[in-house]
Amino acid sequence: MYSGAQISLYPMADNFVQIILGSLSALDPYRPRFRIETDDLSTLIVGAPQDLFPAMRDLHVAASRNSVHCVLHATISRGCPGEQPSSAICTPIAGGRGHGSTAPIPARVEEALANVASAPELGQVVAAQFSLYPLGGGGSGHHHMDEIYGCIDFLKRSGCFGRAKNFCTTLRGDAGLVFATLAEAFLRFGSPDGHLAIDLTVSANSPSKVDA
Amino acid sequence: MYSGAQISLYPMADNFVQIILGSLSALDPYRPRFRIETDDLSTLIVGAPQDLFPAMRDLHVAASRNSVHCVLHATISRGCPGEQPSSAICTPIAGGRGHGSTAPIPARVEEALANVASAPELGQVVAAQFSLYPLGGGGSGHHHMDEIYGCIDFLKRSGCFGRAKNFCTTLRGDAGLVFATLAEAFLRFGSPDGHLAIDLTVSANSPSKVDA
Repeated sequence: MYSGAQISLYPMADNFVQIILGSLSALDPYRPRFRIETDDLSTLIVGAPQDLFPAMRDLHVAASRNSVHCVLHATISRGCPGEQPSSAICTPIAGGRGHGSTAPIPARVEEALANVASAPELGQVVAAQFSLYPLGGGGSGHHHMDEIYGCIDFLKRSGCFGRAKNFCTTLRGDAGLVFATLAEAFLRFGSPDGHLAIDLTVSANSPSKVDA
Repeated sequence: MYSGAQISLYPMADNFVQIILGSLSALDPYRPRFRIETDDLSTLIVGAPQDLFPAMRDLHVAASRNSVHCVLHATISRGCPGEQPSSAICTPIAGGRGHGSTAPIPARVEEALANVASAPELGQVVAAQFSLYPLGGGGSGHHHMDEIYGCIDFLKRSGCFGRAKNFCTTLRGDAGLVFATLAEAFLRFGSPDGHLAIDLTVSANSPSKVDA
């Protein structure tokens, strides 16, 4: 199971280079378990699925210090058949939460809710917008819209649901809860061994007014 | 066939609000044919599939004036079964290029190459990174990885292919050619009536060095 993300930080400030470079130490605790590559468009992190969201959270919170309006975008994937079929660095920790479940959707919703209940509070409010893409036919009865609707049911009860928009769903709340909720969406929906991708945008300190 | 995009602009500058507001007139020629809604995370444009990429191109080029490092991100979708089943505003213009084809993949690659050959040159170099997601089983023999590989074959011959990365592909070149290439990827690959999504990032004026 190959899993990872292409992540980018967009600090809306003249000193964006310094802000980005100054935030990178937030990834240090994760470096031993990740493969990391950077170019001018994004930074690739390859690692176990349950490590991806805490790493993105800590990076984005670090880059959003001092009230900078900063957006993180990530293209997150697991199980892509076009990547190498498996990678030791992506193997979930034994006994850990793993990367999916064969349980029925309602049971997975309850598991996800139990996990987000213990999310840490980090003191940084964020707004997130994401799309979940379960790819491939999946012979095991996982229909892609059923998985999406199951995930939306979880999101509505997560404590940080924002609203449904065309093509995506928004979340709003403390970064701890929002990233924990995103992790559960990634880990528990879609076929457990199937190809799943997320298109994620997280914004902090936007000056725009929010109606919702 | 419901089609549209959630688009966001990220000018990496202190005066990002003015830059964004100053670029919006680039959408004026498209407004009569689009439904447009904005919140603090993105702007939704709903309209015919062949209009989406020229509109995003003109908006991004306008926001990237004066050498500002500016990124556009878009979540683009057609045929999502969770949206209203069809919308008059999304109907391709009669006789136009439409939004898909039942021709075999090699024929669609040739059509796409013929179309990008007439792309306008705009004088703004951009780098793009995107992922193409053909969703749903699609009973008509459209296997999602076959469509992705067919699209990659087209991209490699488009004149702006950058490189394959994990989870995405990069393009580099004049904004005219890059957005025309992206449009062809969206219009010609994946089942013509199926659910197709793109996760797109386009960057202008990055100070980072590019090895590729």
